[in-house]
Amino acid sequence: MTARLTPADNPVLVEVTRGDMVESIHRGAFAVCDIEGRILLSAGGVDRTIYPRSAIKPLQTLALVESKAAEAFAVSDAEVALACASHDGEPLHAEAAQHWLQRLGLSPDDLECGAHWPYHEASLRALAAHGETPTAAHNNCSGKHSGFLTLAKHLGAPTEGYIDFAHPVQQSVLGILETMSGLDLRVAPRGIDGCGIPQYGLPLGNLALAFARFAQPDDQPEGRQAACARVRRAMAEHPVMVAGHERFCTKVIAATQGRALVKTGAEGVFAGAVPELGLGVAVKIDDGNKRASEVVMLGLLARLGVLDEGAQQVLAPLMEPPIVNRRGETVGTIRLAPEAIT
Amino acid sequence: MTARLTPADNPVLVEVTRGDMVESIHRGAFAVCDIEGRILLSAGGVDRTIYPRSAIKPLQTLALVESKAAEAFAVSDAEVALACASHDGEPLHAEAAQHWLQRLGLSPDDLECGAHWPYHEASLRALAAHGETPTAAHNNCSGKHSGFLTLAKHLGAPTEGYIDFAHPVQQSVLGILETMSGLDLRVAPRGIDGCGIPQYGLPLGNLALAFARFAQPDDQPEGRQAACARVRRAMAEHPVMVAGHERFCTKVIAATQGRALVKTGAEGVFAGAVPELGLGVAVKIDDGNKRASEVVMLGLLARLGVLDEGAQQVLAPLMEPPIVNRRGETVGTIRLAPEAIT
Repeated sequence: MTARLTPADNPVLVEVTRGDMVESIHRGAFAVCDIEGRILLSAGGVDRTIYPRSAIKPLQTLALVESKAAEAFAVSDAEVALACASHDGEPLHAEAAQHWLQRLGLSPDDLECGAHWPYHEASLRALAAHGETPTAAHNNCSGKHSGFLTLAKHLGAPTEGYIDFAHPVQQSVLGILETMSGLDLRVAPRGIDGCGIPQYGLPLGNLALAFARFAQPDDQPEGRQAACARVRRAMAEHPVMVAGHERFCTKVIAATQGRALVKTGAEGVFAGAVPELGLGVAVKIDDGNKRASEVVMLGLLARLGVLDEGAQQVLAPLMEPPIVNRRGETVGTIRLAPEAIT
Repeated sequence: MTARLTPADNPVLVEVTRGDMVESIHRGAFAVCDIEGRILLSAGGVDRTIYPRSAIKPLQTLALVESKAAEAFAVSDAEVALACASHDGEPLHAEAAQHWLQRLGLSPDDLECGAHWPYHEASLRALAAHGETPTAAHNNCSGKHSGFLTLAKHLGAPTEGYIDFAHPVQQSVLGILETMSGLDLRVAPRGIDGCGIPQYGLPLGNLALAFARFAQPDDQPEGRQAACARVRRAMAEHPVMVAGHERFCTKVIAATQGRALVKTGAEGVFAGAVPELGLGVAVKIDDGNKRASEVVMLGLLARLGVLDEGAQQVLAPLMEPPIVNRRGETVGTIRLAPEAIT
């Protein structure tokens, strides 16, 4: 028996047009939260429980840094950024994971995330053209899992089974997620993520709160504050490691020079931190679609005044992405619904 | 100014679960219609205007057959099935399109649908491994466009520009869509499809009616009846040409031995004909997601009693598809919402 997501009406946040019509719509909810837990801006059910999926990675990475495992194993900022990534499996991502593992005396075979072909199509084709097949280093989560292995080694825990709920690595991550979100996640709905690790259901508003604290962790212990600062810096300085050259997260972090640290998750989730404002942002599209979560996230960043003129110019194609057909013609657009963000 | 898709509440038709929770939901509408235009089964806004997208291909193919162009150019049943296809770009699809075009004295360069890498991943990788790039013959619509070129030649019309609204080929298709759906589509909302041809907005219920007539065209002229019979036979006897070895449409047509002729379309559309019952089925998922439209279509076929024991067994994995993670673990499921189909 699974708990039911109440289908109470989240508003239409995004419209997809084609020619004379709106062809498809996306409903969802979002919350912008400050470090006091105040919801400053929202739509839909901010209390509804969601799985944050990969959007939570920057917070999972705190465990690597806060434990001093990163320091002990000379983990670079680029590697910390890779730990926060759902990367595209470009050569620079896969190679970075491989080198990191090598330094630990491990290999991609020790990653428990499974292998998949790179998301980045040109990298996929190049791999196939060389007669190669992907390893777990190409898995979009290979950085996060390399971080988990680093933490396992640092804790003196077995590296095998590091993805299990009861393993010290996952328990360490769980503790951090609890204090950041203000929730007892031991009793939360639980599922298994695409890469095998536990996922905890939490209200959308609490995900936004956790990212507000990540942005400005003033109420957290010193070690946590330092860890947040390092993870923020790593993401800001290595945006390409967080996703990939053709990806939304990378483009937004780069264009805002780290003023917005955004992270996508599967099933239409997006989270972000705006350090200068001490704000966290969380988005969930009911139907799980990424094209919609991206448009909402960027709309919220614009509304919060985080995009200067330069960023607006660079990111304009992502604010209202055109639908381009196989002939290269623009035949429609993906756009915020009227009054989606007021 | 684009017409707005009224966001009035279509019901939740499909739930996507993970572990303890429903993680995402899909709203939408469906209609099952008989040849008298009676809606026998429905949910949501059956009057809402949608673009049928590629789900309309079997009806577009009627123009090729009814005009006698197919006969004049010795178009085989396998080629007629390919004209109805959104195919996966497997070698057998691309080669069939190439041979057909060769017979017309044309080449993939004459197709105006644009090129894209095969949807079928193994075929994509094989192409890349051979250092090749895709041609328009790999485009999922190459069969339909080969049919259009055949019709252009037969009509003595220029082959160039056959995708334009005013071209005799598109006008011929338009006339057929009008009589099948019972609508004046000249005044319908219009858009451009992924492959460059015109798309006409029509109410979901009228799409179901058009497929009911395709199933049992008793009220249509003799030439139309014969054309419907041939297109139905072609789809039933060459299901792999309609989509591909790993695809839903192919599996459903094959498992039902043509008792259900189903065709997917982009943006969460599905249409189907059940010849023995004289019924047409049309599905539109609000958010455009295919994982949901497939589950609804199969649920409707089960409800209509079209799936015998053998078909039920073969299609069981598609009735409630598991969500399998990168480690090969089943971590969730895609299923009909309670009371989605009553």
